[in-house]
Amino acid sequence: MTTIRILTEGDLKARIGLDAASVACVEEAFAKLATDTVVMPPILSMTIPEHNGEVDVKTAYVPGLASFALKVSPGFFDNPKLGLPSLNGLMVVLSAETGLVEALLLDNGYLTDIRTAAAGAVAAKHLARADAHSAAILGGGLQARLQLEALTLVRPIERAWLWARREEQAREAADELSAKLSIPVEATAGAEEAVKAADIVVTTTPATSPVLEAEWLRPGQHVTAMGSDNAHKNEIAPEALLRADLYVCDRLSQVRALGELHHAIEQGLVSGEAEFPELGEVIAGARSGRTDDTQITLADLTGTGVQDTAIATLARERCEAAGIGAEFQA
Amino acid sequence: MTTIRILTEGDLKARIGLDAASVACVEEAFAKLATDTVVMPPILSMTIPEHNGEVDVKTAYVPGLASFALKVSPGFFDNPKLGLPSLNGLMVVLSAETGLVEALLLDNGYLTDIRTAAAGAVAAKHLARADAHSAAILGGGLQARLQLEALTLVRPIERAWLWARREEQAREAADELSAKLSIPVEATAGAEEAVKAADIVVTTTPATSPVLEAEWLRPGQHVTAMGSDNAHKNEIAPEALLRADLYVCDRLSQVRALGELHHAIEQGLVSGEAEFPELGEVIAGARSGRTDDTQITLADLTGTGVQDTAIATLARERCEAAGIGAEFQA
Repeated sequence: MTTIRILTEGDLKARIGLDAASVACVEEAFAKLATDTVVMPPILSMTIPEHNGEVDVKTAYVPGLASFALKVSPGFFDNPKLGLPSLNGLMVVLSAETGLVEALLLDNGYLTDIRTAAAGAVAAKHLARADAHSAAILGGGLQARLQLEALTLVRPIERAWLWARREEQAREAADELSAKLSIPVEATAGAEEAVKAADIVVTTTPATSPVLEAEWLRPGQHVTAMGSDNAHKNEIAPEALLRADLYVCDRLSQVRALGELHHAIEQGLVSGEAEFPELGEVIAGARSGRTDDTQITLADLTGTGVQDTAIATLARERCEAAGIGAEFQA
Repeated sequence: MTTIRILTEGDLKARIGLDAASVACVEEAFAKLATDTVVMPPILSMTIPEHNGEVDVKTAYVPGLASFALKVSPGFFDNPKLGLPSLNGLMVVLSAETGLVEALLLDNGYLTDIRTAAAGAVAAKHLARADAHSAAILGGGLQARLQLEALTLVRPIERAWLWARREEQAREAADELSAKLSIPVEATAGAEEAVKAADIVVTTTPATSPVLEAEWLRPGQHVTAMGSDNAHKNEIAPEALLRADLYVCDRLSQVRALGELHHAIEQGLVSGEAEFPELGEVIAGARSGRTDDTQITLADLTGTGVQDTAIATLARERCEAAGIGAEFQA
């Protein structure tokens, strides 16, 4: 018999959000990936074409942490027709010493939303100009909203533009964000207009062909591509990787297969063996980040198991300290 | 908010065991693997050398089933020193239509034990001689016990021999099995003695070097190798694959990397591209099984996600029909 703590989405929302602590937690996770002997296996990915669905499983063992998380992320893209969200899932927290299941975080994808947004903040913190004060968001979903909010945690963002394929959705998101963040956020008719205006650009779409063209970029900008977590997704024109002075990824082995880099390799613009710095290496000081204010920097983030283990550990510690959650004997 | 049914090991043990229904369920799962467009991704596997641990994740989508299981199997081999079992874990059952989590089977590895033993029965049913009436089991753990029990479900086993590296453990297992199955089960001092005596041989050890030599085999025998589910495990001398008249595996792509076949390939005895029948193809009649009573047959089983989805579906259906389990809003 083991005792398993069960935490619901409500429990977790009450104790963890997108704030400085979550950003620090994810930042530290990336640094560990560069400096510690983290074990992070390739993602398990299964598609269910009959139901326009997929499920991804990510995990990572981080030395020094007493537990590790194993995250199950289903994405079923016909769900909105049924009035259900596309993304769901849970995290299983296991003891790193015994493998026993210690907690189930029934978060319906909430912790993924938070750690993904936090990674955007971490990338901007280490790669954007210190004086970057405007942002463009491509995409109109929940992650678009969270990414802009995340940027405000690390840069003095005073103004933003937002473009989404569905104009109505863009307007709604812009209005919501203006109210929430107390800065002007304007929906634009085209992606180009938004990208050209901003100091920091974040792409958060499920696009399978580029929504950002290389020639739109100008010196000093930083771009974070968040949307590509699957080989068929592609937000950034592959030429933009050449146009960037500095390209940084979350996990090189992963972006070669899933990220924007994957498409640049496929088109023969970049060698499949080319080496690029990982965000954790930049954070840890092992590789250079931005070295001057005229560089174009590009972060290619596909999402890593080490972020999941980090955010799950923080969430569980907070809930346990507060005595939240149900205990279950199994 | 979704409703998740939580079933404990106790709930599951009350409703599912090693019996004809479980064997039929696993047999059908293998047949589907051969005939339907099952989606079964490669196993996610992570080792945690610091704690002598590993965790494997398996899953499969089976068309026609409303749900699929995703199984998390930790194996932490220093656990017995702490008074804990080495193997644990749970299964997450998701809707195949929406990806929503429908049930959590907190089975601590129990359903894996059952579906693994059932696969041994299925292999013997389709590959052993119809008149096979004696068995040798190499290994003295829980799976050794279950495998012999499983054989009695499909063949008229009248007598058995059991060898394990620790003599004391072999004697205990043999005594228990004699009492439970009401047949003479004798612990032997060597593996050779047991193997030479029996019509059916099942290996269930965590061996990393062979415990069964090719020259011990005689015409008419059937061997099932159950133990190798990891690249470093190896129970059967690679030469035995050549000595066998018919070699059958559970999943060809998997045994090339993890099974006994892996070692035969590594030693250059078999080509890495060589084609072999899968058990499901034999069940479905697409490939031949045993064609005469003098053949030596060898089944190489590494464990498949389709077995997990099948047993989880059966277990959950039975528990729901009986109104067992707790419902949780998340």
